[in-house]
Amino acid sequence: MPNANVIVWNEYRHEREMPEVAKVYPDGIHSAIAKWLGTHDDLSVSTATLDEPGCGLDDEKIQNCDVMLWWGHMAHDEVPDELVDKLQRRVLEGMGVIVLHSGHFSKIFRRLMGTTCQLKWREADDREILWVTQPGHPILAGIDDHFILDREEMYGEHFDIPRPDETILISSFDGGEVFRSGCTWRRGAGKVFYFQPGHETYPTYHDANIQRILLNAVRWATPAGAMRIECPNKPSGWLDKE
Amino acid sequence: MPNANVIVWNEYRHEREMPEVAKVYPDGIHSAIAKWLGTHDDLSVSTATLDEPGCGLDDEKIQNCDVMLWWGHMAHDEVPDELVDKLQRRVLEGMGVIVLHSGHFSKIFRRLMGTTCQLKWREADDREILWVTQPGHPILAGIDDHFILDREEMYGEHFDIPRPDETILISSFDGGEVFRSGCTWRRGAGKVFYFQPGHETYPTYHDANIQRILLNAVRWATPAGAMRIECPNKPSGWLDKE
Amino acid sequence: MPNANVIVWNEYRHEREMPEVAKVYPDGIHSAIAKWLGTHDDLSVSTATLDEPGCGLDDEKIQNCDVMLWWGHMAHDEVPDELVDKLQRRVLEGMGVIVLHSGHFSKIFRRLMGTTCQLKWREADDREILWVTQPGHPILAGIDDHFILDREEMYGEHFDIPRPDETILISSFDGGEVFRSGCTWRRGAGKVFYFQPGHETYPTYHDANIQRILLNAVRWATPAGAMRIECPNKPSGWLDKE
Amino acid sequence: MPNANVIVWNEYRHEREMPEVAKVYPDGIHSAIAKWLGTHDDLSVSTATLDEPGCGLDDEKIQNCDVMLWWGHMAHDEVPDELVDKLQRRVLEGMGVIVLHSGHFSKIFRRLMGTTCQLKWREADDREILWVTQPGHPILAGIDDHFILDREEMYGEHFDIPRPDETILISSFDGGEVFRSGCTWRRGAGKVFYFQPGHETYPTYHDANIQRILLNAVRWATPAGAMRIECPNKPSGWLDKE
Repeated sequence: MPNANVIVWNEYRHEREMPEVAKVYPDGIHSAIAKWLGTHDDLSVSTATLDEPGCGLDDEKIQNCDVMLWWGHMAHDEVPDELVDKLQRRVLEGMGVIVLHSGHFSKIFRRLMGTTCQLKWREADDREILWVTQPGHPILAGIDDHFILDREEMYGEHFDIPRPDETILISSFDGGEVFRSGCTWRRGAGKVFYFQPGHETYPTYHDANIQRILLNAVRWATPAGAMRIECPNKPSGWLDKE
Repeated sequence: MPNANVIVWNEYRHEREMPEVAKVYPDGIHSAIAKWLGTHDDLSVSTATLDEPGCGLDDEKIQNCDVMLWWGHMAHDEVPDELVDKLQRRVLEGMGVIVLHSGHFSKIFRRLMGTTCQLKWREADDREILWVTQPGHPILAGIDDHFILDREEMYGEHFDIPRPDETILISSFDGGEVFRSGCTWRRGAGKVFYFQPGHETYPTYHDANIQRILLNAVRWATPAGAMRIECPNKPSGWLDKE
Repeated sequence: MPNANVIVWNEYRHEREMPEVAKVYPDGIHSAIAKWLGTHDDLSVSTATLDEPGCGLDDEKIQNCDVMLWWGHMAHDEVPDELVDKLQRRVLEGMGVIVLHSGHFSKIFRRLMGTTCQLKWREADDREILWVTQPGHPILAGIDDHFILDREEMYGEHFDIPRPDETILISSFDGGEVFRSGCTWRRGAGKVFYFQPGHETYPTYHDANIQRILLNAVRWATPAGAMRIECPNKPSGWLDKE
Repeated sequence: MPNANVIVWNEYRHEREMPEVAKVYPDGIHSAIAKWLGTHDDLSVSTATLDEPGCGLDDEKIQNCDVMLWWGHMAHDEVPDELVDKLQRRVLEGMGVIVLHSGHFSKIFRRLMGTTCQLKWREADDREILWVTQPGHPILAGIDDHFILDREEMYGEHFDIPRPDETILISSFDGGEVFRSGCTWRRGAGKVFYFQPGHETYPTYHDANIQRILLNAVRWATPAGAMRIECPNKPSGWLDKE
């Protein structure tokens, strides 16, 4: 029986508009990720995309979601602020969120971080080497002390994020740039994981190491408890009266 | 010669509307703080309040400000979002910000944190004991390993903030509650300090330990460098061409 | 089938020498904890004590141990340095370690922390209130936002530990003292949890909240991967030759 | 008038035994660093080396030292444990310590960290690019968002250190390796800065960026307060009797 409801959210524009992307992800990045995650019995996986009604998300889906993955790039601004409010609230209550690649500029990530989330970038078939900086972290179970992606978009420091609670991966690129490519934070009762690889023109989400990390991350981000949204007045002696 | 431009921002409503507050801070909380800070030659101190035109802040003042202190409570919503945008941007560029007491619910603090910033509370003349958890921190220079405020508003955990970069003070209250009462974070190039004491009906800002901490915090939060707001495309070989 | 080998290590002197302690823990603190943990099918639990040959631990037991719990107080110095060397190495390789109460002064904890681990203390039947500061943490699954121990030894700040990776519980005591009573760190691939309650004259380890936290902590500390102890010379081009 | 007593400690063996090192640092690495630091009026700078009596350090020098820099490599084991005990105690009391390059394996650094401090390495004239990951940090005042050392020893992840309080620099090397090359921690009241560059055959300590960072680091590490080494019994009511 599944113990986590997972939603893979994707902007799903590049894949429909650019043939070179459709070739890599014919049914969209969300479908590729959902297919792999869905082969695991502990996960119940669905997808949602920007151009579905309500961005594919309604209150019930959000409330029942345990972990949401988020890929977006060219249309961050089309995600309504009201939806971002609801997502943020749900994260604080306990939902895990895994922000992928260009999702660094998504409204929900910037909302949770409080910073610009800006970075250096280049599309030039750089080789990316991802180095483990925290061996033994559950998100890295089964991963060697480094792995390589033959081609990825370069993302370089300075990456304007709050100090991560955990920096579990740091990458280098052909040009000599470095990037904190795997970072975690807590926000309220919810866990946040930012994972940098995943440019739409490369087969990143078909890579076995990437898939393993996503699966680990979903399990890690599954809620272990909840936080109530409240700001209670507690009169003198309330503890003794309980 | 001053090396830091400091602005003490205050909502300044309680003091004008409630006689019991006016008695403690006849010219407003901002004036009490500014007066003490202003006795130090390295600081150039001014004030700004909610009901001045533009909340007492214009683009030039914000741009020239090195450290801003922020007290607000009953009228957080009257601070325009556009002003909060500018303040956030200036913090990321390097401005320090010191958020006081009920400022935990201010727009600028919640914007920088990404969380609800909720807490438990009680107005009942609790005695507050503030315990040093990081001896040797510059904000605590000259402070013993604890100090006492005879009466303060109780603020209690769970305080919904991102994990602080530094938790330098933890308080207890008569009712047995605890609170992380002194916390720091970095956001972009800017330093953030949240400092919990300061309820408007108590003479907290006349207390020598509180004044010392505010002075230390202003010096600590003074920018040591800046961050540019940008997201540059860096073509292959750019490092060698510099 | 068990997926974690757990050893509960105890000094086991107070219980044999002091009738008032024997009354609370007739078979020792280790037995009380091991009994509760052992009722869970995923755990294989054994015990070891100071006065057994080799402190009840040999190389094989250490190597096969996934999570070790450690209670000690009056005889920290009788634990041989060679054993501490082995324990430290095993933690860095991935073994979890849960340090209990007066274990704050144990050789293994001070070795892993690098600090004095000193604190304030008092034996006076204080009421301790433990407040959750990180809702949603797996160690706190099933725990409300606070819970109370009617009597405990007071441990008070400043607690001289390195900044915890996570501070998940903060306690208050009758005297107004506060203490970071639940803290986690990573050392190498191993997880460390310090948990403050557990004075030998009180029935703390019979408390349902305490038992639940210990169970959660054991599961949390179970290794998710390993670290090799090595310092390899990596000649130019090694990555391409792999 | 100086407000910090600084001691630059150096093993000083390579320079005396290897002509290619003597060519770069004819009077030793310590002299090169001390000379630059000593041009600043706020610092009183002296040196100490391994082969002086008592390693060039006595109790008085240690007690009066505000910031110690430490370079060692081939003879870490010749530093007596008793001296390391004293250095650790002094750091906890408030002394800053700046650990340089191969000092990652020094006894004092490993003592303060509690981990192996192991890493990957290569001597092959790699170009090192150092990237700023925390703009606005006082140690990086005056440093651009990156700088380059034409030749350095490669140090690569995984670097087995406790999670840094601050990771302010991350480096890449020609081989594609990355390294957290500038990290800070607090231990007791003392500040610790590990700074990776500085292989003895390269003119690293003559580089303007490196010198600037060392100067900034010394000022940052200067004590802002002290911690007493004690573990006091605090009877009921002690706070009210003070």
